[in-house]
Amino acid sequence: MIRAGIIGASGYTGGELMRLLARHPEAEVVAATSRKLAGTRVASEHRFLEGFSDLMFEDISNEEIKNMCDVIFLAVPHGTAMNYVPELLEDSKCRIIDLSADYRLDTKVFEEVYGLEHKDPRKVVFGLPELHSHEEIRNSRLVANPGCFPTGASLSAAPLAAKGLLKTVIFDSKSGVSGAGNSPSATSHFPNLTENIIPYKMTTHRHHAEMVQELSALQPGFTDVSFTPHVIPATRGILTTAHIFTTEKLSQEDVAAIYKEFYKDKKFVRVINGVPSLLSVRGSNFCHIGFEADKKSNRVVVMSAIDNLVKGASGQAVQNMNIMFGLDETTGLLEPGVF
Amino acid sequence: MIRAGIIGASGYTGGELMRLLARHPEAEVVAATSRKLAGTRVASEHRFLEGFSDLMFEDISNEEIKNMCDVIFLAVPHGTAMNYVPELLEDSKCRIIDLSADYRLDTKVFEEVYGLEHKDPRKVVFGLPELHSHEEIRNSRLVANPGCFPTGASLSAAPLAAKGLLKTVIFDSKSGVSGAGNSPSATSHFPNLTENIIPYKMTTHRHHAEMVQELSALQPGFTDVSFTPHVIPATRGILTTAHIFTTEKLSQEDVAAIYKEFYKDKKFVRVINGVPSLLSVRGSNFCHIGFEADKKSNRVVVMSAIDNLVKGASGQAVQNMNIMFGLDETTGLLEPGVF
Amino acid sequence: MIRAGIIGASGYTGGELMRLLARHPEAEVVAATSRKLAGTRVASEHRFLEGFSDLMFEDISNEEIKNMCDVIFLAVPHGTAMNYVPELLEDSKCRIIDLSADYRLDTKVFEEVYGLEHKDPRKVVFGLPELHSHEEIRNSRLVANPGCFPTGASLSAAPLAAKGLLKTVIFDSKSGVSGAGNSPSATSHFPNLTENIIPYKMTTHRHHAEMVQELSALQPGFTDVSFTPHVIPATRGILTTAHIFTTEKLSQEDVAAIYKEFYKDKKFVRVINGVPSLLSVRGSNFCHIGFEADKKSNRVVVMSAIDNLVKGASGQAVQNMNIMFGLDETTGLLEPGVF
Amino acid sequence: MIRAGIIGASGYTGGELMRLLARHPEAEVVAATSRKLAGTRVASEHRFLEGFSDLMFEDISNEEIKNMCDVIFLAVPHGTAMNYVPELLEDSKCRIIDLSADYRLDTKVFEEVYGLEHKDPRKVVFGLPELHSHEEIRNSRLVANPGCFPTGASLSAAPLAAKGLLKTVIFDSKSGVSGAGNSPSATSHFPNLTENIIPYKMTTHRHHAEMVQELSALQPGFTDVSFTPHVIPATRGILTTAHIFTTEKLSQEDVAAIYKEFYKDKKFVRVINGVPSLLSVRGSNFCHIGFEADKKSNRVVVMSAIDNLVKGASGQAVQNMNIMFGLDETTGLLEPGVF
Repeated sequence: MIRAGIIGASGYTGGELMRLLARHPEAEVVAATSRKLAGTRVASEHRFLEGFSDLMFEDISNEEIKNMCDVIFLAVPHGTAMNYVPELLEDSKCRIIDLSADYRLDTKVFEEVYGLEHKDPRKVVFGLPELHSHEEIRNSRLVANPGCFPTGASLSAAPLAAKGLLKTVIFDSKSGVSGAGNSPSATSHFPNLTENIIPYKMTTHRHHAEMVQELSALQPGFTDVSFTPHVIPATRGILTTAHIFTTEKLSQEDVAAIYKEFYKDKKFVRVINGVPSLLSVRGSNFCHIGFEADKKSNRVVVMSAIDNLVKGASGQAVQNMNIMFGLDETTGLLEPGVF
Repeated sequence: MIRAGIIGASGYTGGELMRLLARHPEAEVVAATSRKLAGTRVASEHRFLEGFSDLMFEDISNEEIKNMCDVIFLAVPHGTAMNYVPELLEDSKCRIIDLSADYRLDTKVFEEVYGLEHKDPRKVVFGLPELHSHEEIRNSRLVANPGCFPTGASLSAAPLAAKGLLKTVIFDSKSGVSGAGNSPSATSHFPNLTENIIPYKMTTHRHHAEMVQELSALQPGFTDVSFTPHVIPATRGILTTAHIFTTEKLSQEDVAAIYKEFYKDKKFVRVINGVPSLLSVRGSNFCHIGFEADKKSNRVVVMSAIDNLVKGASGQAVQNMNIMFGLDETTGLLEPGVF
Repeated sequence: MIRAGIIGASGYTGGELMRLLARHPEAEVVAATSRKLAGTRVASEHRFLEGFSDLMFEDISNEEIKNMCDVIFLAVPHGTAMNYVPELLEDSKCRIIDLSADYRLDTKVFEEVYGLEHKDPRKVVFGLPELHSHEEIRNSRLVANPGCFPTGASLSAAPLAAKGLLKTVIFDSKSGVSGAGNSPSATSHFPNLTENIIPYKMTTHRHHAEMVQELSALQPGFTDVSFTPHVIPATRGILTTAHIFTTEKLSQEDVAAIYKEFYKDKKFVRVINGVPSLLSVRGSNFCHIGFEADKKSNRVVVMSAIDNLVKGASGQAVQNMNIMFGLDETTGLLEPGVF
Repeated sequence: MIRAGIIGASGYTGGELMRLLARHPEAEVVAATSRKLAGTRVASEHRFLEGFSDLMFEDISNEEIKNMCDVIFLAVPHGTAMNYVPELLEDSKCRIIDLSADYRLDTKVFEEVYGLEHKDPRKVVFGLPELHSHEEIRNSRLVANPGCFPTGASLSAAPLAAKGLLKTVIFDSKSGVSGAGNSPSATSHFPNLTENIIPYKMTTHRHHAEMVQELSALQPGFTDVSFTPHVIPATRGILTTAHIFTTEKLSQEDVAAIYKEFYKDKKFVRVINGVPSLLSVRGSNFCHIGFEADKKSNRVVVMSAIDNLVKGASGQAVQNMNIMFGLDETTGLLEPGVF
């Protein structure tokens, strides 16, 4: 059994990691840290774990946790993970999957986008296994788990990027509010969100940089990406509507052929007919992708649906863990969505 | 024009008072106090007032506000209103409508229920105009505006109480979350409330005392009232399901006759066929009441629907203001619900 | 009093017309037609009208209704209105406000977009009073009330079009499901829509033609408009996120100046700071507009919020009626939103 | 592998059976019937099964399906199942789990409650494994799977019934709308349900009979049960608020002791502190139960939360299948809820 630890386990991604690992046949959670909740039962906070876990939240040192665990998930805010990583890696064999933004970007880009000095610059594999080498992930001690928006957005445009067909891309994304965490705020205040949809950071969201990084890796030189996120009255899920202007006019059949070919061996991406639904992927690690080519112009509208807490965070982290430990990438993750 | 002031105007009931008074032909808001937001535009907080109000939140003394206003609405927490009232009434002509709990109950009952010493014990009319004398309201300088739950619950059972028919009553109420105010909390956190329904204070909610007070006034000696509230994933509205065991078996026609007779002159209560809908009264001062007599037992299920912020708070306060100032009680309030 | 008739009064726009006219000081509804519901009380279908209307749905002839009414609202499906209009106008003085699509577009464009032969080609004023001459509306016997999406979209981009600044516009719109009418369907089925957002007609929605018409009228030759609508889990409201690429780089201040100047005399459009909220305009005839200029590119994200049933349909129809009958355009419509 | 067939597989309970069996290690679905959808892919209707099932809906005879299957789930309307059962049982070894109401009640009670003649009267075990003998279930070829409301309601009151403590019980239940099936209707029409809560069959719901049956079996002679259901704006889940008047005054500790003892060996019932949440059991086969004893009266408020499609239907059916086939009752069902 893989012994897993979670640093920052009281939040939504921490809880979701424990939900997913509760049913994983090859891994078990042996440590869940939280300063705030140290000494209380994990299942008192994450009520869906009632009867599944007797674990207590702990406040333990890096030294302790790295000796207890084969893999450590970092579910801490950006700017914080870089304080843990060097110590956790040193004199240990444990491997790390960082769910924060700290190691996702080229250091210079990170410092510019996040306005922080990076204390631990290093080159780390971007753990989006549909677009990056599994071998590289397997050989890494540290994997940077992608952001939720970049996962859905990159997967929606990658097949066209790989063909060099992108000219201009506008990602208009709609996210469930769990992406904002489990602390009550004005945005998550029910009367503000119900029957509403709330745009935010319309031109300045930091996840933009990950999208440019991923698409320009596939289509060198391509950077004409705009990104505008919205919060919708839903807990889970990101629907990305990608308005893609292409360098050539494409028919519906052209697009279908390109997407089906690109994703033909990817277990967690389903190219579907029609419009993807957040409800079909809820609770699951799947990404459903649909599209419609505009008959009158060089535009394709591509839509991707993921569960932001699963494929957009904790599920993808478990997928990376599986790859890192030589398991089939789907181990413990082959569950249909709960509509 | 009646010059109205609102003490504690930054919350939902304050905002709702301003919405309702914005369209009132005989009153205007001249002062809106908020310590926290003093100096900012009222319309910056209550965005629906954009273009309707240039008022600023102020932090002004009792002395000042009582000289500016003909009527003052107290939209402050319970235990606080009693600190304002004596000073506001003294050496002034202004009249007060208190939306808090401070003056709703007999002093002894209040002290027991709220666990507080009452600093200003006095007998005050309970401003539920369908059950209390309009003349008494008109002649009062201070009116205690009822709680939201007691309004819907009392109206649902009052006709049977007036006939002495109540044996046992269980009020199972379902409220929109705006009743909990505009500060984000665990209950109002969208992921906790969506697709859920949350019981709370199942046997101990303080509004119980107002229900007993109102029903025992109509049916002397009757006190067998249970009350269990729930929060539903909605902003506005309270549906009360009253499970009423009666002293006699009543047919559907019996109940219809009793309710239609009791409410025949009440402008804001509509006895309807079928099941009342929160959406039909949303934003309005109406209470819709429906019922079904159990053919097999001495039970009637009565359902009342109100908007907790209107008939359950600010609309009823305006209704009381109208009566106090000799206007038709419906002035400015005859608006259909916004489904 | 203006005597108003509504043909097709059983649907949402019909009900909304009656809600708005119930509080209009200068108009009253004297006839509400519905074949399906003829003989039943209007308030039995539109429950929020309980106590406001004793009207019955009728199935009456054009002859009858045009003699009873000063103004007739056509709330019938597209392709149907053109069957009513000629007869209603002939030998009568009544005026018509058509809420369908039949007279909104140039006849040729209409026939192409709707795939129908137009039986009554004529040039009709487009009743978007913020962009069209009030005098022309006043002098018309027939006004074409705009579509819901084109209202919000056109208002969001019009100020830039008037300056000739549009290069490429993508309207990504999010609508409440009431736009799909009051007949239950797969899209409006609660389990399909809750916690979801559903794109539809991603490249082929017919309202696109109205947007092109309105913007090209302001910026001759401009046609580079894409439009993708979505249904959100809400009843009312359309938020349009307009991704606008401009011919020049504009600062936040530039955009603010252009929008404030353009809308300075428009009573129903509010240019606001920050992000507009559907909840602030719910139930009201207002359009709130916010924006953010991208500092790094020639892009502005403009967001408009309207209530699709009010400013997007019935409220705008009443606004047109007011203008047609020489009243202030705001008569009966100056109500804040019901958050 | 247990070969499972589903008759009536296009509905929600059919889809949910396939979701649950997709992850069951000892069973697989080999036939899914639907007249309406025969010839189409199961995953086209139940989109969450994309990639999990290549099955097609079929319209096959009883003869065929009983030869293909070890177990058949009947997911058909009440009054219909009794037409299938005799033929399916005859000359076959297959076993049947009936999710309809046909075999849940004593024949006479069934005929009275459902107003139908029973064509196949026989005594069948009621498949609520927490209250009925596993051995009896194991030895049955036909099991009657309980109704959704009776499951949550009976579990909430059973421990007190087993002690003979019930005097009067009012079940006020709140259900997600998936209980009404996947056909769009007025109740499931989004604009009617959002921000609302809809009582229905306030005194006449047929599930009442199952509750009386189960509780009177535990407390002979007890029949004073009232039941009023509501639909809430949620897809999944039933919260039952049981207002229980007891024959003796009970403290919070008394109640806790009784419930913990009664359910100590039941894997799918968790007696929790505080208020149960529908979100904690969503998608899972668990029932969470909380309670509060009224300090002032002989009343206990007990609350149970289940997922109506899982513990209230398909999950319980799989639990029964497990017992019938000698597996651990939890096989394939030990999944935490997806909050």
